[in-house]
Amino acid sequence: MDPDAVAKAFVEHYYRTFDSNRAGLANLYQDGSMLTFEGAKTQGAQAIAAKLASLPFQQCMHNISTVDCQPSGPAGGMVVFVSGSLQLAGEQHPLKFSQMFHLMPTPQGTFYVLNDIFRLNYA
Amino acid sequence: MDPDAVAKAFVEHYYRTFDSNRAGLANLYQDGSMLTFEGAKTQGAQAIAAKLASLPFQQCMHNISTVDCQPSGPAGGMVVFVSGSLQLAGEQHPLKFSQMFHLMPTPQGTFYVLNDIFRLNYA
Repeated sequence: MDPDAVAKAFVEHYYRTFDSNRAGLANLYQDGSMLTFEGAKTQGAQAIAAKLASLPFQQCMHNISTVDCQPSGPAGGMVVFVSGSLQLAGEQHPLKFSQMFHLMPTPQGTFYVLNDIFRLNYA
Repeated sequence: MDPDAVAKAFVEHYYRTFDSNRAGLANLYQDGSMLTFEGAKTQGAQAIAAKLASLPFQQCMHNISTVDCQPSGPAGGMVVFVSGSLQLAGEQHPLKFSQMFHLMPTPQGTFYVLNDIFRLNYA
């Protein structure tokens, strides 16, 4: 399968899950996974899911603007870079963000998130 | 050495080289390296250096706002996420950007750039 198509499908699945069932994101991480959210580091699927659940907003909707991807070496992973905007319930203006994922293959032929770094784009 | 300090030193070296001797960036890439610059993909150190040399601006200055880094797996690499602004000569307003690097260790104990993805943050 085309890596760009895999990356795009992953990203759509990730944000759809974030916006509809945030706790379900735990399945996309493993024990060695790391999240850096606005500079705060968290490691491990359960801790990452707890961090994402604790963010100071509940309902939200991500809109994706760009998805760039590259193979990340012989282990079969890929790096994915996303730009987009995040609309929070009750807020008038969406927040622009950039996020990178380092995806690694699983024995089941899917991918999990090894590295995840999120930053809002301050204007 | 602290990975955050390594990442910060790399990033400072990268943009200092970009702003003062852009051709010197070729030394930071290898044949398997990839650059995606505003969606355009280039592979290999020489092609990447040529792409960076061909950008439609000469004098520029990068200012770094944030540097986030994580180890990227057992091979000893790290992913680095940078946000900052790019001041072009003769332009009044700097351009905000986000960029990610996937760095891999060299036998000499330094790092080279395996993956590089750059995007301007459109307001």
